[in-house]
Amino acid sequence: MRRFPEAIEQLIEEFSRLPGVGPKTAERYIYALLKLPKRDLEVFGKSLAALQDRIGVCTTCFNFSDSSPCEICRDSGRNAAQICIVAEASDLHALERSGAFTGKYHVLGGLLRPIAGITPEHLTVEALERRIRENGAEELILALDPTMEGEATGQYLVKRLGKRKGLRITRLARGLPMGADIAYADDMTLGSAFEHREALPNAREKE
Amino acid sequence: MRRFPEAIEQLIEEFSRLPGVGPKTAERYIYALLKLPKRDLEVFGKSLAALQDRIGVCTTCFNFSDSSPCEICRDSGRNAAQICIVAEASDLHALERSGAFTGKYHVLGGLLRPIAGITPEHLTVEALERRIRENGAEELILALDPTMEGEATGQYLVKRLGKRKGLRITRLARGLPMGADIAYADDMTLGSAFEHREALPNAREKE
Repeated sequence: MRRFPEAIEQLIEEFSRLPGVGPKTAERYIYALLKLPKRDLEVFGKSLAALQDRIGVCTTCFNFSDSSPCEICRDSGRNAAQICIVAEASDLHALERSGAFTGKYHVLGGLLRPIAGITPEHLTVEALERRIRENGAEELILALDPTMEGEATGQYLVKRLGKRKGLRITRLARGLPMGADIAYADDMTLGSAFEHREALPNAREKE
Repeated sequence: MRRFPEAIEQLIEEFSRLPGVGPKTAERYIYALLKLPKRDLEVFGKSLAALQDRIGVCTTCFNFSDSSPCEICRDSGRNAAQICIVAEASDLHALERSGAFTGKYHVLGGLLRPIAGITPEHLTVEALERRIRENGAEELILALDPTMEGEATGQYLVKRLGKRKGLRITRLARGLPMGADIAYADDMTLGSAFEHREALPNAREKE
């Protein structure tokens, strides 16, 4: 099998470092890039090379940002007593998109996975503890994936931080997602949806 | 909804120019890039920016290459009298991967789509005609997608080049692909598979 020219082989390898990108997808990207106006391609490459110069990490919440403290941490209109704990900055942005939360965030930088050697020291737990100690907090909202790792990380945080007086630890509700098909929902989700079922206003209450 | 820092917004837009990449996928890529070692990211960006400096187009077959004529066109071990016509360089590489062909190629640069304004002048048809006139050819193998546009482009080439003496024009066989489910195959494919059915050696012939 004929290999590509060296410059293309190299880029295929680079693109394959992106999540979900294999050699075939990389190849398709490169054909598209070869058809871009040359100037555009150069701008793209330069933006990419400079990304980490322009984007750093907020030293308070560990979100990616072009300033530190970041825009969210600086925003005095947001409730600093509520801290929403997320694994990754991408989770933070998904929550921001929903517009459901007006407090502050803390990005752990991952979930505990002792088997893969990811222990609390690899996450920003100590910085979180310091942040709570120095600035206070009334509620930690755990917004971690409902997976084994998410559960374990949540349990660890409850054990480590849950004894502080005046600090409530909550987690996002489990239940049926919008558009779900009950016939295909898993047992854990159904169990949780039953347990936390909501009262609907009935006709008598409405009168 | 909070926007991303400018540097990230810009890269999301750049990545969205790649086929099949929307803002969400671009976002995932960027989170991965932010976690790469800084040096690696810079190398990636520079390779990208320099791609078109390092890769050009072969003036004979119009394949992407770091030399012109390209490696395939220079290869005297390949049969120059057989020219396989493909729409895009990516098709050429798929055929090369299969190892099924040992002649030369010609990349049209697309398929005819009069509605979108893509006429023969936008493709490399004239260069193909000149190539055949100057160097001769015994067979043109049309390896174009079995779609409306592929058919129309093939018919156009037959009409334009089919009168040359000693030039045979063929096209890749139509039939059931490996692993196909006959119950779900379309009528055109089944029709073609019947029409061009192959004789199997029977017991008597084997004797």
